[in-house]
This record gives sequence, structure tokens and C-alpha cells, in this order.
Amino acid sequence: MDLILIAIVLGLLAIVYGFITSRQVLGADPGNEKMQEIAGAIQEGAQAYLKRQYTTIAIVGVVVAALVLLFLGPLSAVGFAIGAILSGVAGFIGMNISVKSNLRTAAAAMKGLQEGLTLAFRAGAITGMLVAGLALLAIAVFYWVLTNVVGLSLAEAAERREIVDALVALAFGASLISIFARLGGGIFTKAADVGADLVGKVEAGIPEDDPRNPAVIADNVGDNVGDCAGMAADLFETYVVTVGATMVLTLLLLSGSTTAVVFSGLVALPLLIGGACIVTSIIGTYFVRLGSGTNVMGAMYKGFIVTAVLAVPLIYLVTQYALGDMNAMIGGENLGNVDPGAPLAEEGTSALAPFTGMDLFWCSVIGLVLTGVIIWITEYYTGTNFRPVRSIAKASETGHGTNVIQGLAISLESTALPTLAIIAGIIGSYQLAGLMGIAYAATAMLALAGMVVALDAYGPVTDNAGGIAEMAGLDESVREKTDALDAVGNTTKAVTKGYAIGSAALAALVLFAAYTTDLAELFPAADVDFSLENPYVIVGLLLGALLPYLFAAMGMTAVGRAAGDVVKDVRAQFKEKPGIMDYSEKPDYARTVDLVTKAAIKEMIIPSLLPVLAPIVVYFVIFLVAGQENAFAALGALLLGVIVGGLFVALSMTAGGGAWDNAKKYIEDGNHGGKGSDAHHAAVTGDTVGDPYKDTAGPAVNPMIKITNIVALLLLAALAV
Amino acid sequence: MDLILIAIVLGLLAIVYGFITSRQVLGADPGNEKMQEIAGAIQEGAQAYLKRQYTTIAIVGVVVAALVLLFLGPLSAVGFAIGAILSGVAGFIGMNISVKSNLRTAAAAMKGLQEGLTLAFRAGAITGMLVAGLALLAIAVFYWVLTNVVGLSLAEAAERREIVDALVALAFGASLISIFARLGGGIFTKAADVGADLVGKVEAGIPEDDPRNPAVIADNVGDNVGDCAGMAADLFETYVVTVGATMVLTLLLLSGSTTAVVFSGLVALPLLIGGACIVTSIIGTYFVRLGSGTNVMGAMYKGFIVTAVLAVPLIYLVTQYALGDMNAMIGGENLGNVDPGAPLAEEGTSALAPFTGMDLFWCSVIGLVLTGVIIWITEYYTGTNFRPVRSIAKASETGHGTNVIQGLAISLESTALPTLAIIAGIIGSYQLAGLMGIAYAATAMLALAGMVVALDAYGPVTDNAGGIAEMAGLDESVREKTDALDAVGNTTKAVTKGYAIGSAALAALVLFAAYTTDLAELFPAADVDFSLENPYVIVGLLLGALLPYLFAAMGMTAVGRAAGDVVKDVRAQFKEKPGIMDYSEKPDYARTVDLVTKAAIKEMIIPSLLPVLAPIVVYFVIFLVAGQENAFAALGALLLGVIVGGLFVALSMTAGGGAWDNAKKYIEDGNHGGKGSDAHHAAVTGDTVGDPYKDTAGPAVNPMIKITNIVALLLLAALAV
Repeated sequence: MDLILIAIVLGLLAIVYGFITSRQVLGADPGNEKMQEIAGAIQEGAQAYLKRQYTTIAIVGVVVAALVLLFLGPLSAVGFAIGAILSGVAGFIGMNISVKSNLRTAAAAMKGLQEGLTLAFRAGAITGMLVAGLALLAIAVFYWVLTNVVGLSLAEAAERREIVDALVALAFGASLISIFARLGGGIFTKAADVGADLVGKVEAGIPEDDPRNPAVIADNVGDNVGDCAGMAADLFETYVVTVGATMVLTLLLLSGSTTAVVFSGLVALPLLIGGACIVTSIIGTYFVRLGSGTNVMGAMYKGFIVTAVLAVPLIYLVTQYALGDMNAMIGGENLGNVDPGAPLAEEGTSALAPFTGMDLFWCSVIGLVLTGVIIWITEYYTGTNFRPVRSIAKASETGHGTNVIQGLAISLESTALPTLAIIAGIIGSYQLAGLMGIAYAATAMLALAGMVVALDAYGPVTDNAGGIAEMAGLDESVREKTDALDAVGNTTKAVTKGYAIGSAALAALVLFAAYTTDLAELFPAADVDFSLENPYVIVGLLLGALLPYLFAAMGMTAVGRAAGDVVKDVRAQFKEKPGIMDYSEKPDYARTVDLVTKAAIKEMIIPSLLPVLAPIVVYFVIFLVAGQENAFAALGALLLGVIVGGLFVALSMTAGGGAWDNAKKYIEDGNHGGKGSDAHHAAVTGDTVGDPYKDTAGPAVNPMIKITNIVALLLLAALAV
Repeated sequence: MDLILIAIVLGLLAIVYGFITSRQVLGADPGNEKMQEIAGAIQEGAQAYLKRQYTTIAIVGVVVAALVLLFLGPLSAVGFAIGAILSGVAGFIGMNISVKSNLRTAAAAMKGLQEGLTLAFRAGAITGMLVAGLALLAIAVFYWVLTNVVGLSLAEAAERREIVDALVALAFGASLISIFARLGGGIFTKAADVGADLVGKVEAGIPEDDPRNPAVIADNVGDNVGDCAGMAADLFETYVVTVGATMVLTLLLLSGSTTAVVFSGLVALPLLIGGACIVTSIIGTYFVRLGSGTNVMGAMYKGFIVTAVLAVPLIYLVTQYALGDMNAMIGGENLGNVDPGAPLAEEGTSALAPFTGMDLFWCSVIGLVLTGVIIWITEYYTGTNFRPVRSIAKASETGHGTNVIQGLAISLESTALPTLAIIAGIIGSYQLAGLMGIAYAATAMLALAGMVVALDAYGPVTDNAGGIAEMAGLDESVREKTDALDAVGNTTKAVTKGYAIGSAALAALVLFAAYTTDLAELFPAADVDFSLENPYVIVGLLLGALLPYLFAAMGMTAVGRAAGDVVKDVRAQFKEKPGIMDYSEKPDYARTVDLVTKAAIKEMIIPSLLPVLAPIVVYFVIFLVAGQENAFAALGALLLGVIVGGLFVALSMTAGGGAWDNAKKYIEDGNHGGKGSDAHHAAVTGDTVGDPYKDTAGPAVNPMIKITNIVALLLLAALAV
């Protein structure tokens, strides 16, 4: 059977799973009328926001699509459109499942912890499988259409080029929309959250999720549009870019280095690995069970471990199926026989050492292990049982200042172990199979996306469930259960971000290889010096490293500004309707939602365009100053600079933010004086600071890195026309 | 006259200036008995701390000196010892001047603002000139001894090698001691400051510098041992490394590419530029005057501008004197004729394009301009008249959380303009004269060190003067004047750090070039691939970028931990001596000073060893995994990774911290509710967070970067034995 069709079938399997499971979830008890009313308001707000967000993005999208059509032709424009639209669809589905599961989770939690966990996790799993399935289908179907309907042949260099350009355009579509969604959603959710906390908890002295707070619905809407829709779009993008980049690298580097059959199998293999892991992820979801205890994180681990362990034999099988002989040499000596496809090998580096199917299998295992290691490290840095979170909680005793200092120290420190793990992954996979090895490690990481997204999307559902329980005045025991479920949410949310940025570090190497290969193919006369001895390489590295800083600064400022607007609106509402505090008047929730919506959409535009425009500006400025070869060198270095800088910004922000949040939760559990103590006040400040760190600026760095890389590839293609 | 002797005479001029001016300062009115008593306690604490710190460092120093002797021979060991001892001397002098000027500044401020400014600035100028003079003398005398007493000849490759190794060892000595001094002093000052604020201002509700606070003397001691002694050691190191690296690069690259006379002139030229700027700095100090208004920053600017503008013709003159014909070609085509000295030219890059004396002159001008631009940008980000500080002050209205969020946003944003300026400087000087151009831009920057350190060292003197005025119960008008003087202190302190790290970015390129050149000379058979296409280069970049994060995390944690100890000690003293609050009992200041001393010394060891050990560990680990050539590649990339990562960490921390501090001052000036308002409380939190950012972790990144680079050079030399 055609390998691509197998991948398509497996992708459809994820959709079917999502469909069936969503019937189960939607069939569950939606709770009482009050709960439905509140959930309805959240749903309405979330839909209104996403509609407006995607309308705005669509305008940018249409303009960019026209440019892609103009410079790169119709196939690329179609690819761009597919990537863009499906990214939007992934976000919409994530949000829709989430807003319909929150009240049902609250209702289920009335029955018991296991019931609540099952419902919330199923909701997350739907989003997870749909993200992975849609991403896999996007590439697989598009590739199938290109090779079977359009009829492009892998054997022809010019037609391979068309496939490459179209796949890159697909990735661009996914990335462009994702960065808007990640950032817009991130600004919305944290502006609402920070604003609500500041004016509610701190000023008015009312608890979190209190229905008297006019920003409370906006806060809950934010969980859905930021943590859920934004996250889903982000992971969709990461999947498409990583798997797509592996295919592109194969197309660029390996044509002619092996038989046509093995070559086409090799191109299809990343899709098969993705498909295989969809199967194991679906199986894994059924293992997320509490067992005898109440260890929610343990239940999550069970599901993940089953998914990853089962993936090992299945990846072996699909690799063998795609390549035939697992021990036959691919690449290496053969490389460079075929015209422009193999500049690295021509230069005599070992980047394209020969490898076997077995090597690729082991590299995939490295990717699986790396994912597990990152999860474990993230839990260490953000879980309440370990030194980092406890040190922040302890530092809260001496005030706001020491809480923030210790939180920043942890956030800086938390970059070390993941970086070392990623470096070990790079070295291991490179030793096994050169650049292709790194690409396969990244692909295997992303193949687990269904499960990882499931763990993450579970978080906002339980967070919302808690809010609904509070606002609907359910029994305190319900809130306790949703809190128990939510407590691991901070860790699982941090996990996804660490995982996404970790895979980005590997993908960046693959994308850089694609850039240099493209460069050699499109500009064979250019003698570009990528050596560190070339100062334009240093200039590129510095400019690249600057981008995440500037981008994060813009994101943080946006949240601060929008949160300030929320505070003013809430203060005004308290003044206009003095009856709010004694429940005799109802706050105007919609007004606050509307205000945050406008602010978030306005604020997301400029930072999102930064990574799109930066590579273009850098290329042309350096071109004017120092000529084209140095401009290519600086642009290439920019691509690596953005990951070298961005990896640390993203890791520190996401882990640090999670640690601050859980330090607060740890104190609320009765430690260091518990709720209402001075330590708690300090911890609330830390949590507030961590909010835009972990949910706005930090996670948006991942799509930002990809966009920069992809724009550079497109720029090369456009310059070569 | 021998060029080196001219440089020595000019260096001595700085010492003479320092000697004469210190007579003037010490001759000034030391105020009343109470002031002398307080100043005596500060002096005693500072001396006790520095003595203990340098004793501890001496132990490390002796061990390292023995290793240097063992691996690199006696000349290098002597160089190391000179660098190490003079670094310590620079720190000691800075501290001694500072603790004797603080009370005299307070006394002078009783007469008027101009009088206070004159005295405090003179005190700063003494430190500035002694740092620059000692640094210049260290290199010039050592080089003179090597070439004239030991008799090493520039014409012999093997003897040039000995000079290079000895100069590198000198830089290593300076750097090693400086990182301990910067970090130890930084931990001391901020642990005392944060601790004193937390327990005094926040808990006990007593004002800053209140004599009832047992940590108040420790806080004032900290200003002297951290902001003054640590800073002086740091700038001494920066000067020695930058000027030394330029000489080393000249020795390595340009022998044989020109006549022997021009060559020896070229080696001496960096020293002459340093000497010329000592002259202009001395002249500049006499222009720091208020004029008709009360614009303290304006007075500072006058002094700096005179120094920099006069430097232009003087640098032209010394360049012409050293090289003769300003338009004669040096380097370029001639390069590579002489054996191993010019691998870059052999590789056909333009790193060693031919240049003229005129080109070097223009590169020096770029360095001067870059210094001015960095000062201006730093003032924008940390001055109370501009958007950044005001935005933090405004964000304080909505609470602790938004203050910190906005401060972090500004700290991230503040990296952009300096980075762009540095990049412009790199490109401009490289276009003019290749790598030597970059080296000369960096040298000219550092040549201004006398003036820049003067502006910085002025800060802690006025800070202490304010404390003494408060504790001695002087009239409020005195405190107002010292506050006015101190207000620009935050900006000038941030300026020095931005300047040091900015010059480090240029110096890092020079040091990297020294590394690659050394590598080619010492390991001619190694075919090291520094291309970004080599994954071990990426691994090195990532590891390098990780170092400042880990280092800063350790520094921040250390401050948090030590500050916590201070809080506990002060609480205990309040309990043991209940009469403290009504002035019937005196707190035990010495006990707190002693406690912070022990904590700071204990905490400084491990982080300081990180950059020493990291290059060695990285080399050997990659060597085991992937062989020597990849190990050399990864190590080289590490050197650039540490600057690519460290530049942003250092810039963001130092500017961010300064902005937070001045946002607090801006509120205290009566804005956003003024002292005691909620906004003020929030701003105090931000200031506390900014403290270890700007005074501990951030500034110590600069010597850390240098150490990493120098250790790599020494490692090469040791491996080659």
C-alpha cells in the first residue's frame, strides 16, 4: 500500500478518535442551570474573541498569500493557505472542546476525582488527537496531492524543488497564523488574569473566580483562547514545521544517494512515524487512570509512558516497512553524485555520514527519551514536591522582593538541565546519522504531540471547571477536587512549552541545514562563509539573539498595558454599580471581555510581524553594507542566533512562571502561613509576574523562531526567481 | 623616545594625579565627631571584608599561579601574579578612597551642591585614574621588562610566543581576581541592601539608612566593597584584557607583514592610546562643574565630552608618532609571508584586509563614539526623565506585580539599542581595518576608562554620604543635596556596566581571533571546522550561552539566601535588644557586617569557578565523544556563545535594575502618590528585585566572559606543551 496513504489513514484515525470521544464528552452531564449560564458566558466570550482574532489574522493572511502567489507561484500559495487555515481550525477546535468540557468537568467532579479527571483528560485528548491528526493530514494529503494529482516526480530536480517550496509554504502558513494566535491569545489570557487578580484579590480583597469581579469571565475566557486555542495552534505549527522540515531535508539532500524506492520511502517515513505515534497516543489515553491513590501527575505519567514505550516497536516496524533492509547504507559516499543536492557532502563534512534504517530508528528513540527527560526536568522545576518551587515559597516569607528574586533565580537556573539534555540529544543523534539523525530525533519528539497536547489541554479545562464551581456556588468539596486536578496543570502546561522549544532547538538545526542547502542550490556562485571567524556571522548571531528579547519585551509590555486597562474598567464598574459587592447588582462581564479582546488584538500585530520582517531587513541592510555573500552569512547566523537566544528566554520564562504559580499553590495548601498570610501575598505577586512570562512571552518564542527560519527560506526562493 | 616608556610616563601621570587629588580630598573637612564615628564603622567593616575576601582569593590565586608556573613557565606565572595583585590593589584603593570621602562629601554638601559634587567627583576621579593608570602600567611595564630586561625579541617567532603567553597570563590574573571581587562584593552589597530594606523599610517601617537598623552599616559597607572595590577590579580587568588582547592579536597576526619599526610601533600603539586618554581624562575631570543650574548629569556629561573630544586629536597624534606614515599600507597582501602567524589571511578571508594608520585612527573614533552612544542609551533607559523609568513608576500604581512586569519588560527591551550600536561599531570598524579595526575600537573604548570609572565611583561616595547625613542626624537640606547627587548615581553605575559589557562584545571577537590564530599556530595539523554547519559549533554556542544564565542564577540565589540571613539576624537583634527602636540601645552593627562577610565569601566561590572550569570540561567531554577537532570547534563556539548569551543577560540586568531603582526615586520625588503610597511600596519591591540584577549577577557577567575566553587560550597553550 502507498506509504502516504497509510499515513493519511492513521491521521484520519485521530480525527475519528476525536469525533467519538467528543460525543462521549458532550453526552456527559452539563451540570445545573447556573453552571450552564456561566459556561455560556465564557463560551460566548471565547467565540467572540477568536472570531475577531482570526478575522484580523485573515487580513494579514490574505496579503501574505498574495505575496506568496506572486513570488513563489500557485502551489506554494495553496500550501500556505492549507497551513494557515488548518492552524486556525486547530485553534478553533481546541477552544470549542474546552468551553464545552469545563462545566461538564465541574459536574463530573461532583461525583469524584476519577470522574473529573476522566472527563477533563478526555477533553484534552480530543484536542491533542485533533491537533496531531490535522497536522499529519495537512502534510500527508498535500504531499499526496502534489505527487499523485499534480504529478510532481521525485526523480526530477526541478519538480522536487516545487515540492520543497510548497512544503515550506505550508509550514509558513501554519507558523504565521500560530504566532498571532499564540501571542494574541497569550496577551488576552494574561491581561485578563493579571487585571482580575490585581483589582480583585489585591484591591477588593475578594477571592479568585469570585462572581462579583467583572473581569472573572474574561479571565476564564482567557484560559480557553490562550492556553487552549493558542497552544493548539502553536503545537500544530511545531508539528507541521518539524515533520515538514525533515521531509524537505530528505528531498534536498538524499536524492540520488540511494535507490528510488528507498528514497521515496525515506521521504514518507516521517509521516509514518507520526501516524504510528497517533496509534500509541490513542492507546495511551486509556491508561490515564488514578489507580488506588490520588496522584494525578502519576496518572498522566502512565498515559505518557505507555504512549512512548509502545512507540518504540511501532517506529521500528514502520521504519522497516518504509526502507526494507534496516541495515542497508543510505547516503554517505553516494552523496554528491547528483547535481546540486548535496553541498554539505561536497564540502567533506560529516554532516551527511552514511546511515542505516537502524540508525534512524535509534535517533527516533533518542527523540522519545528526550521528550521524557524534558517532562521529568519540567516537573522537577515546577512541581510542588521539589526544591525549586519550595525555595520560592520559602523566599515569600521575607516579602515580595525575595519571592521575585528567588523566582528569577530559578527561572534562570531552569534552563541548564533541558539545554544539556538537548545537547546530548543533538550529539547522540548526530553521531548516529548526521543531520538526518537530528531531524529524526525531532520528528519522533513531535510524533508524541497528540499525547503531550492532551496533557496540556487538560489544564485549562480543569482551571475553568474550578472557576465555574466557584461562581456557581457549588459545594467546597467540588472546588477542592478541581484544585487537585488543576495543580498538575501548571506542570503539564510548562511541559508542553519546554517540549515545544526543545524540539525547536533540534528543528532549528534542520532548518539551518535546509537554508544552507537551498543557498548552495539556488546561488551556486555565492561563496558564503558561515565560519565564526566571519564577523558578519557574529553580527547575525547577535541580531538573532536580540529578537527573542525584543519580542518578549513587547509581549510583556502588552500584557502590562492591557492589564492596566482591565484594572481601570473594573474599578469603574465597582464605582458605577456600588451594588456589585453585596451581590445586589451584576457586573457587566461582556464589557470587560470586549475591552480585553480589543486590546489583545491591537497588541499582537507588531510583535508578530517582528520575526517576519527581521530576516528581510537584516538581509537587505547587510547586503547594502557588505555585499550579498556576507548578507547570506549574516542571515544564516541570524537563524541560529534566534534559537541560541530564544531557547534560554523561552525555557526560563515558561519554567519560571510555572514555578511561581505552584509556589503560590503550595502556600495556599497551608505551608508558610497559608492563604492570607504575608507569604501568600508575596507569592501572589510572584504568580502575577510569572503569568506573562509563562503564558504570553515565553511560549510565543517557539513559533517566532520557526517563522524567522521559514521566512529566510522563502526569501532565498524569492531572491532566486 | 621609546614608545613604551612614553606610555609608562603617561601611566605614572595618572598615579600622580591620584596622589595629588587624594591629598586634596583627605585635606577636606571630615565633619563632626558623630559623622566620623559612623564613617569609621563603615571603614572598619569594609576593610575587614576586603581583607577576608582577598585572603580567600589569594589561596585560589596561589594554587592557580602554581598551575600556570607548571604548565606555562615562570614568565607566565609572573604575568599572572602581576595581573592578580594589581587587580587586588585597584580594588583596595577604590574602597579606601571611597570610605574616606563619604563623610567629607557629606560635610561638603553642608556648604552647597557644587561643593558636594566637587568632592564626591574628585574621589571618583582618584579611583578612575588609578584604575586606568595601574592597568596601563601593568601591561606597559611588564611588556617593557619582557622586551628590554628579559630581552625577548619581536623578530623571533618563539620569543613572540613567550610574550603572547605572558600577556595572556597577565590578563588571566586580572580576570580571575576580578570575578571573585565583583561577585563577592556584589553579593555582599546586595545581601546587606536587600536584607536591610526588607526588615527595616518593609517590616519595621523605619526609613532607609535609619541608625536603628542593625544592617545599616553593612549596607553602607556594601556600597564600598561592591560598587566601588568590585567595580574597580572589574574595570581594571576589562582594561588589561582589552588592551592586552589587541597587542596579542598584533603579535600573532602582523609580524612580518610590515617593517620591524612599524611592527613594534603597532604593538605599542594600544598603550599609547591608553596613555593619551589618561591625559584627556585628567583634563576632563576639571570640566565637571554645575555651571548656573543644578543639572548634575549635565556636569558629568561636560567632563566626559571634553575627555572624548580631546582624545580625537591626541589619538591621531600618537598613531602618527607610532606608525609614521598614516597612509602606508599595513598587513593585507604582505600577510602570510611569515610562517604561522597569519592563518586567517591564508584562508583568504577579509579578516586581515590591509589597513593604514588612518584606518586605525577612524576605528578608534568609532570606539569613542560608541562609548558616548552607550552612555546616552543608558541614560535613556535609567534616567527619570524618559519613558522607560516613568512607565515602571506608572505601573507601580497598580501594584507590585505590574511594577515587576513592566520592569522586566524594560529590562528585556533595553538590550536592543546597545546591541544595534555595538553591531554598527563592529561592522564599521571591520569594514575599515578588519579584525584589527575591531580591536582598536575596543581599545579606544577602554582608553576612556579613567573618566568612566570616575563617574561610576562617584556614585557609592554620594550614596554613603547620604547615609552618613541621615545617621548623624544632619539637617534635612544636606540629605536633599546628597540625594540630588546620588540620583544620577544609578545612571552612571548602569553606564559603566553597559560600557564594560559593550566593550566585552568587541573584545570577545578579538579574543576569538586570538584563539583561532593560536590554534592554527599550536596545532597546525588540526582541521577545525568553525562553520555553523558543524553541529559541534551549535553545541558550543548553546553551552556558552547557558553559562551566563547559570552564573546569574547562582548569583541571584546567593543574594536571596544571604539577604534571608540578614533578615533573621536583624529580627533577632530587635528581639534581643528591645530598646533599639526607642534609641535606648545600640544595635550590634559589627555582628551583621560579619555575618554578611562570611556569607558573601562562601557564596562567591562556586559561581566564580564556573567560567574557569567550563571550557576545560567542555573540551575534554567533546574530545571523548567526538575527537579533538570537534572539541576545538565546540570550545571556540563556546567562547562566542558566552558573549552572545551574556551580552543580553548583562545588558538587561544592569539597565533593568537601574530603571527600577530610579522609578522608586521618581515616585519618592512626589510622583504617583510619593513616599509611603501604594505605588511607592510596589516600587520598593521592584528596586529590591533590581538590586541583585544590577549589582551582583549582571556586572559579574563581564569578567565571566573574559575568563572563559582566557582560560581557553591558556588551555591551548597547555595542551600544546
